[in-house]
Amino acid sequence: MSAVIPPTVAVARGLVEPVLRDAVDRLDPITRRVAAYHLGWADAEGRPVTPGGKALRPALAVLSARAAGAEESLAAAAAVELVHAFSLLHDDIMDGDRMRRHRPAAWTVFGQSAAILAGDALLSLAGEVLLEDGCPGRVPAARCLAAATRRLIAGQALDLEFERRSDVSLDECRQMSTQKTGALLACACSIGAMAVDGPEPLVAALASFGAEAGLAFQLADDLLGIWGSPSATGKPVLSDLRARKKSLPIVAALTSGTRAGERLAALMGGAEPLSESELRDAAALVEEAGGRSWAETEAKHRLDAAERHLADADMPSAVRAEFLDIAHFLTSRGH
Amino acid sequence: MSAVIPPTVAVARGLVEPVLRDAVDRLDPITRRVAAYHLGWADAEGRPVTPGGKALRPALAVLSARAAGAEESLAAAAAVELVHAFSLLHDDIMDGDRMRRHRPAAWTVFGQSAAILAGDALLSLAGEVLLEDGCPGRVPAARCLAAATRRLIAGQALDLEFERRSDVSLDECRQMSTQKTGALLACACSIGAMAVDGPEPLVAALASFGAEAGLAFQLADDLLGIWGSPSATGKPVLSDLRARKKSLPIVAALTSGTRAGERLAALMGGAEPLSESELRDAAALVEEAGGRSWAETEAKHRLDAAERHLADADMPSAVRAEFLDIAHFLTSRGH
Repeated sequence: MSAVIPPTVAVARGLVEPVLRDAVDRLDPITRRVAAYHLGWADAEGRPVTPGGKALRPALAVLSARAAGAEESLAAAAAVELVHAFSLLHDDIMDGDRMRRHRPAAWTVFGQSAAILAGDALLSLAGEVLLEDGCPGRVPAARCLAAATRRLIAGQALDLEFERRSDVSLDECRQMSTQKTGALLACACSIGAMAVDGPEPLVAALASFGAEAGLAFQLADDLLGIWGSPSATGKPVLSDLRARKKSLPIVAALTSGTRAGERLAALMGGAEPLSESELRDAAALVEEAGGRSWAETEAKHRLDAAERHLADADMPSAVRAEFLDIAHFLTSRGH
Repeated sequence: MSAVIPPTVAVARGLVEPVLRDAVDRLDPITRRVAAYHLGWADAEGRPVTPGGKALRPALAVLSARAAGAEESLAAAAAVELVHAFSLLHDDIMDGDRMRRHRPAAWTVFGQSAAILAGDALLSLAGEVLLEDGCPGRVPAARCLAAATRRLIAGQALDLEFERRSDVSLDECRQMSTQKTGALLACACSIGAMAVDGPEPLVAALASFGAEAGLAFQLADDLLGIWGSPSATGKPVLSDLRARKKSLPIVAALTSGTRAGERLAALMGGAEPLSESELRDAAALVEEAGGRSWAETEAKHRLDAAERHLADADMPSAVRAEFLDIAHFLTSRGH
């Protein structure tokens, strides 16, 4: 399962990156260095490197304005990426994740305090960049982004709570993913149209498209978190099981009522770190309990629902095709 | 040195608190509980308690709108308090401070991850609350708050760096305090006038007043951090020396070129935690090296400068008097 990055993504990235760099340049030198490392622009010593990261959310925001028949709002696209970057920076600290995009996570390089501060700075910059733009819908766009941030935080709070609980239902887990991943993707897909004062029904359809595509993406990402190779994920193999994450396929298996699900619960309920062979057993049990096939089917359903929202919305057909390209890329490669 | 809380502060607090509670009510239950504890509304179990904290910044923001001859902008006042609360929540984690306002700091009660998330949520809420208000100057006000947040973060980054350095100059230390404390106070004093579209010269004068008053406050707070009683500070005695903070009076002593300053540097340069008797020696050395009297004189100069900015600004004289009351309260009690 691998797919070519849609050309729009590279184009949008080229458009948005100068806006992002201009924003980050305002930060004090200490915080700027952490941010530049985290954004993939510099190494730990501050030397420039070829940027990593695919900037899918800015591409969606750029398309969103074009769907409304306007020139893209680059400020809105940059703001969404800044919120995304903030959330990854803080999530890595909270989750204790030591790797991010094939490199040591920022907090392991610069320390936890510097990483907390850099995340704070990126979150605050998002609003600042968006509001200084001249686009007519900047206020509703900034409010939409703040509400999405609130939901993203709610999702992460649930995710952390789930790690301490053994009774997470599939509905709760879906709600968590809807907030943690779906909210910001819904915002990315609608913020451009909002920023250029596009029609309300279009904004609503794009938000629904983004929410469904976001859930499909999360399902694909959860599958990669179990069966993805480190070269695809940039993280150690079997990382979600190692961290005892309650991701969607794992919860589907745990709540399947099967013998394999019970054995998985027994394995994951222990207090000791799982050995490599136990981790492989756990992955096999998720599959045997139907968690893998459920997640694959569910991802397909979410993608179908996303397409229906897009089909109903009034926009240039070339823009619709590009949205679909990105949605398929998101779910086929899982990043 | 203690002073009565100016009546405006209690009045403003009564006005702003419902706006703050309405904002925090939007958070998910997990994050809301941490925020309510940190804001002094609830105990660790979520039971309501008599609110603590004096909400001086909202009072300044309320006066700021009145200075422009308008009804107060409560959204702007609430937004400033949310940013202040965010910064305290995250600073306590970074500084390892276990006590805040006579209670265990939120991160010691709910864990570090929950406290990081709650701080993120309060920062994001600040922009959300401000932008949904109908006041004509909400966009410049939100941009001003974001820029102040950026400077506050820069100040905290420097403060953390100073803990690892032994060569901090008094100028660097002053710059750090200007950013860490002065920026948000300058914003609090000017954001109300900005939100109600007050005249630019008034906004500028109020910002300058706030910046100077903020520096005076920081100096008073630094003095309390060495000589304040736990009942006044809510923290253990001699806490800044214990944490080897490079606060203004300490840096003034270290850079005084006196024999006492050299002995202080030797004491503070060690790697081991300081004993209670060493801490008392260190405090005596700060005084002997002139750090205490320098800070007291400097605080007076800053307060005089603040008063001059206020005298030059065109506003109702009753509002000017209330601003001055708060500035004197800030620096006489240091909280």
